[in-house]
Amino acid sequence: MPDLKEIAAWLGADFSGNGDLEIRGVQALSKAGPGDIAYVARAKQDVDLSQVRAAALIVAGDSPLAYANRVLVPDPQLAFARLLEYFYPRQPFWTGVAANAYVSAKARLEAGVSVGPFSFIGENTRIGEGTEIHAGVAIYHNVKIGRECLIYANVVIRENVEIGDRVIIHPGAVIGADGFGFGRTAEGGAVKIPQKGRVLIGSGCEIGANTCIDRSTIEETVLEENVKLDNLVQIGHNVRIGRDTAISSQTGISGSTSIGAQVIMGGQVGVADHIQIADGVMIAAKSGVSGSVKTRMIVAGYPHQEIGAWRKNMVLARNLAEMKDKLRLIEKRLKELEEK
Amino acid sequence: MPDLKEIAAWLGADFSGNGDLEIRGVQALSKAGPGDIAYVARAKQDVDLSQVRAAALIVAGDSPLAYANRVLVPDPQLAFARLLEYFYPRQPFWTGVAANAYVSAKARLEAGVSVGPFSFIGENTRIGEGTEIHAGVAIYHNVKIGRECLIYANVVIRENVEIGDRVIIHPGAVIGADGFGFGRTAEGGAVKIPQKGRVLIGSGCEIGANTCIDRSTIEETVLEENVKLDNLVQIGHNVRIGRDTAISSQTGISGSTSIGAQVIMGGQVGVADHIQIADGVMIAAKSGVSGSVKTRMIVAGYPHQEIGAWRKNMVLARNLAEMKDKLRLIEKRLKELEEK
Amino acid sequence: MPDLKEIAAWLGADFSGNGDLEIRGVQALSKAGPGDIAYVARAKQDVDLSQVRAAALIVAGDSPLAYANRVLVPDPQLAFARLLEYFYPRQPFWTGVAANAYVSAKARLEAGVSVGPFSFIGENTRIGEGTEIHAGVAIYHNVKIGRECLIYANVVIRENVEIGDRVIIHPGAVIGADGFGFGRTAEGGAVKIPQKGRVLIGSGCEIGANTCIDRSTIEETVLEENVKLDNLVQIGHNVRIGRDTAISSQTGISGSTSIGAQVIMGGQVGVADHIQIADGVMIAAKSGVSGSVKTRMIVAGYPHQEIGAWRKNMVLARNLAEMKDKLRLIEKRLKELEEK
Repeated sequence: MPDLKEIAAWLGADFSGNGDLEIRGVQALSKAGPGDIAYVARAKQDVDLSQVRAAALIVAGDSPLAYANRVLVPDPQLAFARLLEYFYPRQPFWTGVAANAYVSAKARLEAGVSVGPFSFIGENTRIGEGTEIHAGVAIYHNVKIGRECLIYANVVIRENVEIGDRVIIHPGAVIGADGFGFGRTAEGGAVKIPQKGRVLIGSGCEIGANTCIDRSTIEETVLEENVKLDNLVQIGHNVRIGRDTAISSQTGISGSTSIGAQVIMGGQVGVADHIQIADGVMIAAKSGVSGSVKTRMIVAGYPHQEIGAWRKNMVLARNLAEMKDKLRLIEKRLKELEEK
Repeated sequence: MPDLKEIAAWLGADFSGNGDLEIRGVQALSKAGPGDIAYVARAKQDVDLSQVRAAALIVAGDSPLAYANRVLVPDPQLAFARLLEYFYPRQPFWTGVAANAYVSAKARLEAGVSVGPFSFIGENTRIGEGTEIHAGVAIYHNVKIGRECLIYANVVIRENVEIGDRVIIHPGAVIGADGFGFGRTAEGGAVKIPQKGRVLIGSGCEIGANTCIDRSTIEETVLEENVKLDNLVQIGHNVRIGRDTAISSQTGISGSTSIGAQVIMGGQVGVADHIQIADGVMIAAKSGVSGSVKTRMIVAGYPHQEIGAWRKNMVLARNLAEMKDKLRLIEKRLKELEEK
Repeated sequence: MPDLKEIAAWLGADFSGNGDLEIRGVQALSKAGPGDIAYVARAKQDVDLSQVRAAALIVAGDSPLAYANRVLVPDPQLAFARLLEYFYPRQPFWTGVAANAYVSAKARLEAGVSVGPFSFIGENTRIGEGTEIHAGVAIYHNVKIGRECLIYANVVIRENVEIGDRVIIHPGAVIGADGFGFGRTAEGGAVKIPQKGRVLIGSGCEIGANTCIDRSTIEETVLEENVKLDNLVQIGHNVRIGRDTAISSQTGISGSTSIGAQVIMGGQVGVADHIQIADGVMIAAKSGVSGSVKTRMIVAGYPHQEIGAWRKNMVLARNLAEMKDKLRLIEKRLKELEEK
């Protein structure tokens, strides 16, 4: 079991208090008991320390919180994230290439790649050093995957997709399925438009379970570096998403839309096709964004509005009965005046 | 072919009419013909019997419906459900452990477990008596699954998940993927927070196709007994759901929210994070629940309201043009008065 | 490399200009450079040709656009779709039946069927001529699939499903999972109603990635010919969808609802149970359709309205504050009058 000074050293941080104190594990602040280390987020300094049972706290270097045992770091949440990996190291799913995987003789796997049972690697597909491919994954022909990626079970990656380094793809995600493109005959019959474009996923991206990212007719669908997608998200064909953008569960981005960098979207948002969302925009859950948002702002509602205006309208929309009653009363008073 | 008295005996029920009447199958009331048995729900006694062609009806014991051949039960719908299993017994998907499954030497399978082709069972994973695992299922390391579960094809269950008895998991569902947790660097970069918590699924739960249930940083995501989830549902990290709650398709529950027992949610509902929903609450389809619902009630809309208030507001919201016209008229009359 | 006259001949079309011009590839109009052929949609004739760099254009036979090299066709978009297949022929995923697939001895595969590694074909399942089944697909017992279908990786098709000819099913889709049917005990406990009905998918249908189509208790869930479903769509039990209908991503159709032919739905639409949508209806994205739509019209909103009325209401709903201010002013003026 590590002690406090070892934890601090591992984090490259200073500490105060008893360096020999043994640390059993990490816990949430409200659940931490003797032996646990917890953290106090930089933005939440109003902690009632009399309720805290943790052996030690990770706090910001300039934190005013006077606790017996403290580790002092620039960002307590990120230090806590690193400690989670220290106390819960990830067990490798598989080592080497499983005998019951299928790897095309024309595929190229670099050093340290692991491929679990029942995974399929197609012709001319290249996989970079140290990437882990779990069970039941289907990687089609002519795919390129970078180094140190983590591809969970039952992911499907279609042909001509390119994926950068350190990308995490959660179970059941589908990358590169055909975009939803149809023409109509004169009689109204639906006719499929082939979808042949590539999908490019930048380094550091994370793609949630059962999320879908489509390919387009001929242009590219692009996630820039470090984009984070939650589960059950839909990314339409020919969409481009800027770096560090995070999109919550069950949100859908329609075709040919461009999303800036560091955008944050809540869950169940819908974004229309062929529009632009500027860098840093925040979109509240369940919003329907029907037109471009050209400057950094927070929007909500359907059709979307600046969130302050939306909140005011929401209050009024919930009180329409009151407004109607007022109107009736006004009409009555007016009639009385008119009759005088 | 069974006759009416055999059907009644199998259900442990009384009957009236011709016990020797042969029953060919079960059917919906409107489609049942000679030879079929159908049922009349307890709450729907206003049936025009002249339109009914069924050989026999399953009715509530106190039903006033005078039909020639009747089976009398406490709950006709549940009796009908049992008859469906009688007429359409489920064909086992696979018997025993398939030669082309992968079962870790360190996994422990109890008696009567079946594992279909291309399924993966990891180290230290334990599977209880009589549980069926179909094809292409990936069950990671250190998973515990109870007795008589039914795990359909291509389900993924990540490490350290615990599942009770008689749980049904439909194809493509993902249990225990990482919750969507990110910190931000000072420059706005997204940084992954590791997700190491367990997921606990109670006995009797049913989890729909392609539904996702996430694990949290360090706490537990819990479905209590007999929770029913439809397809494409998202359950965020650190969520707790009470027993007998049913959640319809494409609904999402955000992180750290607690849902009571016997809650019923329609489809495409969104529930915000860190809130509480009381036992027995009903939430209409497409609602956005942005705050706690602390007492048993029916809510609808976004933000949610008590459903009666919501309905009134909806009617008014659809007739705002009328309200605007009234305002214009009032202003005109007012002006006339003022000018006098 | 083909030249213009060869392209025209392959399309069975006339051309004007230099027939010997070599065509390197197809491109979108805005991105096409020398060597590329692009198209101008019939409805978009207002093209600034001075900005076009394409070697040749596919245009409608009666197009007024005067471009040096043209291919003249009845429908430029559909001709372009055919050229995509010419320039990007699909590489077969697999040829023949993989040694590491599982095909029941009681299954029947017609000539030219391919089955990729780790796919499962159950007892008494029949697969028509030329159908391609990729990797990790699970097709249960007693399934019938027609000719020339394309079943992508990790699709699951449950027992007693029937699929027509030339159907495309994208990765991770689930056909025939149990509908979400529960009874309640007197104490409020949820009791599963078995789902034994068939699912019928007509010829020419296309089913998106991770989309789910449920079976019902005893009746049939039906997609008529040429229905197009996008990704992550939910089709409830006992739903019927008419031919050539197209449904966008993340839309859900509740149980026992009937959708007409050539209906078009945007994304994230919710359609209530037990209702009818007439042929040719169009439903805007994010709408909640809570009752039948009995004539061909465009609807939007929740609850849905005719789209013109909805648009007017939306404008007013966003300006409720203005309405409230007017009311306040009117009350003030009224009071002044009353006090005179």
